[in-house]
Amino acid sequence: MKYRTHLSSEISEALAGREVIIAGWIHLKRDLGGKKFLIIRDKDGYIQVVISRKEQPKLAELFYELTPESTVSIRGTVKLDKRAPNGYEIVPAEIIVHSRAKAPLPLDVSGKVPADIDTRLRERVLDLRRDESRAYFKIISVALRAIREELYRRGFIEIFTPKIIATATEGGAALFPVAYFGREAYLAQSPQLYKELMAGAFERVFEIAPAWRAEESDTPYHLAEFISIDMEMAFADYNTVMEVLENVVYRAVKAVKEECVKELKILNYEPPDIRLPLKRFKYVDVIKALQEAGHNIKVGDDIGTPELREFCKVVKEDLFFIVDWPSEAKPFYTMPRKDNEMFTESFDLNWRFLELASGSTRVHIKDLLIKRLKEKGLNPESFRYFLKWFDYGIPPHAGWGMGLGRFALMLTGARNIREVTLFPRDKKRLKP
Amino acid sequence: MKYRTHLSSEISEALAGREVIIAGWIHLKRDLGGKKFLIIRDKDGYIQVVISRKEQPKLAELFYELTPESTVSIRGTVKLDKRAPNGYEIVPAEIIVHSRAKAPLPLDVSGKVPADIDTRLRERVLDLRRDESRAYFKIISVALRAIREELYRRGFIEIFTPKIIATATEGGAALFPVAYFGREAYLAQSPQLYKELMAGAFERVFEIAPAWRAEESDTPYHLAEFISIDMEMAFADYNTVMEVLENVVYRAVKAVKEECVKELKILNYEPPDIRLPLKRFKYVDVIKALQEAGHNIKVGDDIGTPELREFCKVVKEDLFFIVDWPSEAKPFYTMPRKDNEMFTESFDLNWRFLELASGSTRVHIKDLLIKRLKEKGLNPESFRYFLKWFDYGIPPHAGWGMGLGRFALMLTGARNIREVTLFPRDKKRLKP
Repeated sequence: MKYRTHLSSEISEALAGREVIIAGWIHLKRDLGGKKFLIIRDKDGYIQVVISRKEQPKLAELFYELTPESTVSIRGTVKLDKRAPNGYEIVPAEIIVHSRAKAPLPLDVSGKVPADIDTRLRERVLDLRRDESRAYFKIISVALRAIREELYRRGFIEIFTPKIIATATEGGAALFPVAYFGREAYLAQSPQLYKELMAGAFERVFEIAPAWRAEESDTPYHLAEFISIDMEMAFADYNTVMEVLENVVYRAVKAVKEECVKELKILNYEPPDIRLPLKRFKYVDVIKALQEAGHNIKVGDDIGTPELREFCKVVKEDLFFIVDWPSEAKPFYTMPRKDNEMFTESFDLNWRFLELASGSTRVHIKDLLIKRLKEKGLNPESFRYFLKWFDYGIPPHAGWGMGLGRFALMLTGARNIREVTLFPRDKKRLKP
Repeated sequence: MKYRTHLSSEISEALAGREVIIAGWIHLKRDLGGKKFLIIRDKDGYIQVVISRKEQPKLAELFYELTPESTVSIRGTVKLDKRAPNGYEIVPAEIIVHSRAKAPLPLDVSGKVPADIDTRLRERVLDLRRDESRAYFKIISVALRAIREELYRRGFIEIFTPKIIATATEGGAALFPVAYFGREAYLAQSPQLYKELMAGAFERVFEIAPAWRAEESDTPYHLAEFISIDMEMAFADYNTVMEVLENVVYRAVKAVKEECVKELKILNYEPPDIRLPLKRFKYVDVIKALQEAGHNIKVGDDIGTPELREFCKVVKEDLFFIVDWPSEAKPFYTMPRKDNEMFTESFDLNWRFLELASGSTRVHIKDLLIKRLKEKGLNPESFRYFLKWFDYGIPPHAGWGMGLGRFALMLTGARNIREVTLFPRDKKRLKP
């Protein structure tokens, strides 16, 4: 017998009377004595199977042995029945059990018995079978496709930069050391310097790949391993790449709203409506608004979560840019403004209090890079390999990086980045 | 002045007499005295700029200061001229130098002075500006898009599995250790076990992400860090996923042939014509054919490069599957054949002597997995975390993995995987 002839999504009333083979997991069992029901779950949805004790005595016996989450193939006939969830059900002739699940399981996949996130992450393979989890990862996949399509349309090519690197590229945040053929190396925190160099060869590049930060902080928004969406563009400044970013976000949200209607319904969530262009607020104006709202904050300070919450209320915007950050708040490769070098050509994209992405015009002049490194207390000698290329003709360029997990919070309404990461890695979690 | 109004690809005879701003690198300079020529290179191609000493004396002076690979923006008028490479050239009014390249450079980007691969990899940022390199990475990007589109079309979702893992998942090949918050962890050699588990939640998944093997061998086909294209599919066996693989390959080759005409011309290469279905040769028949050709080989042996070269000649095929490998040649998670458990439901996809991809039906029954682990001399206890899930209802499933770099060799005609990897990592190379 074949594993399957039809997915649940491929069965309709038009198949009434036809024999089909469905396959999936035993999601629920319901025993009404004379009639016994199985709800079978597959990647696309659910389908009801009905066993009559009188007419199918052997299958009715087998029913008692079927444990939830066991995998099966079921050959049977599509029968119309107004009482069935989709208006039809399957009357089985044969049930093949591929793999019998133990009972009871440590987690209820049907979601009727809620579990805390620690339990769910420990039993992640079961947890990911829940409707909500499957909705999250379908939405993420649809968004990824839309993100890439928008970038392809604009002449970007997809690249992969090295993840094992010889030296820290950004300074600051902690790195994970790797033992590399007897030498010490590190896991890349971001593709920053490499993507800049690649803009110096291919002009328009993007990368969607893992990055690592040895984050000590235990928050719903930080992980030690995360997927970073990065782009870099030659002969462009921060205004140009902000326009690319807002269009990438727009297109991803549009795709999710159009292609994930079922998933958003499961999540009871609607991503924000986006009107382009997004509002751009100058950093100094944000500070001023916060001061007027009574916050003890001054130019040069970072803008923290409580302040951002307040600012969203004041301006009544959920998704917006904060631009022209002070030099001390941004990395060494950020281009100072021509009119006032205390500030930079930089931006953050914020969704409410959460920083989704940040970017800037980059410094493409070697002497200025060295000056900026020194101002940051970094040693230009450790960046020798990177600086060398700036003697080889680097174009003016700009770019941004966006965390896929954080973006997924906006797309799905999930409250913790661990929900939208298959197997999250943090200080506590290295397994499963 | 804007950086650019037009890419080289956007300029045509129709713009004759119009003012444009182009931007790019000084690719070549040619001084004919009264007339001085600059060939400007941008992401899409080349465009000629002509300076008349008599009419543009200041620009003619600047001409001498312009070094190859310096980045510039040039404002000027499009002028038709049959002698120009595209039938038109730019008569400049203004030239802005963004970044002056030092001279001489350690590598000739125009490709007129060939360099060996070690030099080119050391000066990789310059090397990647060569036409051939840019053609390689354009082709790879086009192929990636086509690969994903074929998988999306078949209902797959894109996932990212963890790269920092607690234990070796495949045994055998060497792992890179990572210091993870005071604990020892490893870089994933492949997403194998995770993708299998994800087929047990989402049914059809794929991942395109880095993987690492501490390869000691120095060959044109091995790297310590590589991009692995992985898929896994529930309720499927190896025949089903071979059909997916050959369609993925077909679609990628088709996209490259259609969208990369210019790049293939630069490389003077044509990827193989593919007719589906690809030929499937049984492992035992390959051994028999080799024995008949006089090779000293027997059932159970691996099939090495010299034997594969010979086999290609005998069967006159360039791209083909070898199926039903003996158990000892395949990993523990490979499903034995039902008719003869000395052999497995497995395949390699070969391009000439090179293994591009391999896959199989996987074992979804816990007891059989434990038996297979023991046969391989592996300790089931080290796979406890993985085995546990097989009590939770795992569907029958199958999948494959393909190295992007090796596939790129077939798509581009490059002879060394380092050519088609931006910054290759091997035993010798951790920089740049």
